Amino acid sequence: MPDSSLVPVPHADRTAFYISDGTGITAEAFGHSVLTQFNLRFRQIRLPFVDSIDKAHEAVQKINHAYATDGKRPIVFSTLVKPELAAVVRQAQGMQMDLIQTFVAPLEQELGVTASHTIGRSHNIADSVEYNRRIDAINFSLAHDDGQSNLNLEAADIILVGVSRSGKTPTSLYLAMQYGVKAANYPLIPDDFERGKLPPELLPHKVKIFGLSIAPDRLSEVRNERRPGSKYAALENCRYEVNEAEKMMHKEGIRWMSSTAKSIEEIATMILQEIRPDKQAY
Amino acid sequence: MPDSSLVPVPHADRTAFYISDGTGITAEAFGHSVLTQFNLRFRQIRLPFVDSIDKAHEAVQKINHAYATDGKRPIVFSTLVKPELAAVVRQAQGMQMDLIQTFVAPLEQELGVTASHTIGRSHNIADSVEYNRRIDAINFSLAHDDGQSNLNLEAADIILVGVSRSGKTPTSLYLAMQYGVKAANYPLIPDDFERGKLPPELLPHKVKIFGLSIAPDRLSEVRNERRPGSKYAALENCRYEVNEAEKMMHKEGIRWMSSTAKSIEEIATMILQEIRPDKQAY
Repeated sequence: MPDSSLVPVPHADRTAFYISDGTGITAEAFGHSVLTQFNLRFRQIRLPFVDSIDKAHEAVQKINHAYATDGKRPIVFSTLVKPELAAVVRQAQGMQMDLIQTFVAPLEQELGVTASHTIGRSHNIADSVEYNRRIDAINFSLAHDDGQSNLNLEAADIILVGVSRSGKTPTSLYLAMQYGVKAANYPLIPDDFERGKLPPELLPHKVKIFGLSIAPDRLSEVRNERRPGSKYAALENCRYEVNEAEKMMHKEGIRWMSSTAKSIEEIATMILQEIRPDKQAY
Repeated sequence: MPDSSLVPVPHADRTAFYISDGTGITAEAFGHSVLTQFNLRFRQIRLPFVDSIDKAHEAVQKINHAYATDGKRPIVFSTLVKPELAAVVRQAQGMQMDLIQTFVAPLEQELGVTASHTIGRSHNIADSVEYNRRIDAINFSLAHDDGQSNLNLEAADIILVGVSRSGKTPTSLYLAMQYGVKAANYPLIPDDFERGKLPPELLPHKVKIFGLSIAPDRLSEVRNERRPGSKYAALENCRYEVNEAEKMMHKEGIRWMSSTAKSIEEIATMILQEIRPDKQAY
């Protein structure tokens, strides 16, 4: 297996490590959002599943190696649940941002309970219910992608509408995967604009419909990648479709937002807040 | 809009808040992984997009209200980038776990640079490239779900194989969404077992194939939810398919793992580490 710590990033000012005894996704997401606040380039290295003393020592070697190469201390974001693993990594010549140890000790005091210090999520019944809910939601969103099926729309938590390539599919999948929300999506197509009405199968479910729009020039760019030079991708046609779609959503009283310059996470979270605020508490 | 802070959770010992000026996904993921280490029940409330002084004051009211209701200080996990918003939330009667402020000041000193303290991800060119890569990967994974297409398999980063319902689809989509990795997936079906060979279209791409297996009793459970009482879902048939699939993967020298009792995130991250370790540094 190639040693990923040796991949060079041109002009990086520092190296950042994301170290975890689990997937490291949280350490990375947090570290990344902190580092983007500094106008510097970081070579970023993920070290997931550091769940033994040996792997912790390997991590230390990689950090020390980066220090020797860069001449500057690497920044180490870690979420190591086991104190003995955290203690090993702490010996490395890096600037340590230990998320777990920083917060767990004060929490133990506040809650009057000792933390279990067990690795990974506990696979208890609540987790398994939650897991099945996410899988069901993903299957639902896939089966109801792009207006493929009108069956069982009453089971949908959210129905996204918008012109082709406005961001409906990735948003539906993200809603399902992150929040366990069943999100169907329906394209608004020229037929709908000519009729001047929403697809009739959606009318009974208006309360859970949310619209996505997009800047016409961005839409044209995206469509041109898919079908270069087509009428479908032409700026003029994109302007027409977006304008008609926004007019229709306004007329039908459908809440909508622009997906331009927003991340999938931002779009999904904003929609959830609008349509299913009850899902914000659990 | 209903006030989500009023949704009751039976027998909750405490309330936990996840507060962010962005989506709050990182604050929630981190807080959740810390809290699962304590054998207590938490009522959990997400407050995303707290990006103004007014919204910060609203958050304070919700925290104080939960304190009054519970008789115990809520635990407040926050990722507020703007110091003036963090300062408002800090006035609330909760136990404060301020992820950003805890780590940004020491980082400013270490890096010798002042943080921008700007909200959300910076929508710069690197982010936009990364965003397009994720969208492309999602579209690729959707088009290559369940062996739908053999076109352009050379563009795949990873090809997952396994029996129906072993977790290939959610894993492919997660790989695409989280890591921007193009993941195709192919079912292994009784025809393949009778022939005793991998689907021939996969043979040129063996180096990027990864197998998913699953415990037969769990598989039978999952399939019974979909097609109750079918031969497809029968334990005996599941045992046969899993056994044949594992035999074939062994014979063909394909790396594989069991998806039983693992989260989608864990499976996806383990596969990435095996097949594309180069994607761990960027």
